[in-house]
Amino acid sequence: MENIKVERLLVNYKTLEKFKKFKEYGNQELSMLEDLQSNIVENDSESPFFGIYYGNALAARMSLYKVKAKYDKYFEPPQDYLELWKLEVLPDYRGNNYGKALVDFAKSYNLPIKTNPRINSHGFWEKMGFQKAKYEMERDFGQNPMIWAPEGISEKNIITEK
Amino acid sequence: MENIKVERLLVNYKTLEKFKKFKEYGNQELSMLEDLQSNIVENDSESPFFGIYYGNALAARMSLYKVKAKYDKYFEPPQDYLELWKLEVLPDYRGNNYGKALVDFAKSYNLPIKTNPRINSHGFWEKMGFQKAKYEMERDFGQNPMIWAPEGISEKNIITEK
Repeated sequence: MENIKVERLLVNYKTLEKFKKFKEYGNQELSMLEDLQSNIVENDSESPFFGIYYGNALAARMSLYKVKAKYDKYFEPPQDYLELWKLEVLPDYRGNNYGKALVDFAKSYNLPIKTNPRINSHGFWEKMGFQKAKYEMERDFGQNPMIWAPEGISEKNIITEK
Repeated sequence: MENIKVERLLVNYKTLEKFKKFKEYGNQELSMLEDLQSNIVENDSESPFFGIYYGNALAARMSLYKVKAKYDKYFEPPQDYLELWKLEVLPDYRGNNYGKALVDFAKSYNLPIKTNPRINSHGFWEKMGFQKAKYEMERDFGQNPMIWAPEGISEKNIITEK
């Protein structure tokens, strides 16, 4: 099997232009563009995005960010975990396991992972070993969180305060 | 113009069945169904959903929840605000201002409102007087928050801690 390389994406105009091909282009990318234009961030500074190139084309990407234990509302005991979002493989590059390669990369940190999958992508996440988190309204407004954890870490027990 | 009635939806099997027609059916609805099945909530208890009926059909809905000031990360000064999500008008009922009626209902509480619009719905929210919140990664993972506030309330000033 072909070797798939996952790399951290740097903030520059070229990368931000490539991001426009992805469905989940939104405020985050626009804000990165503004920061670059106003020199709040340097060209080629690290972004929270990781991607897979096919030649010069950015074929797949995800955003990944380590959330500190004190903000953890998902795992027991509370601990550092990874928030994974905007995982997307462009249509021309599907069927190459790029999605799995990105998730495996995230898992290699050996930290629990939380994601909010797009509707109709639950099958993929289940194949990746993710499970639905118990829905908790005050935490999950409009989200359908799914979680994965290395061995020995469980989902937080939800005790409803009455 | 026809009088449009917005009403609070009650948790029961009939409503939950109607919810299946909406695109953003997810963990929240499944969790409500489980709570009903296991008698954790009573039949016809209040849900966080509001809707508009056309005859017997549920034509539009939104979810609305008051977030306490101590959890407010969007407004200045911090205060109670409404989180609005899953605003959706079924295709057969579009063009009747049901979306606007739901948003006006939310505004009638005279509290600031935060929502995370679906991609491609920004035009609607701008028409409703909402503005993009400044993107803050640690708060907005994968979201494109938009906010509205009654007069005298501003967006929180974002000061990055270094």
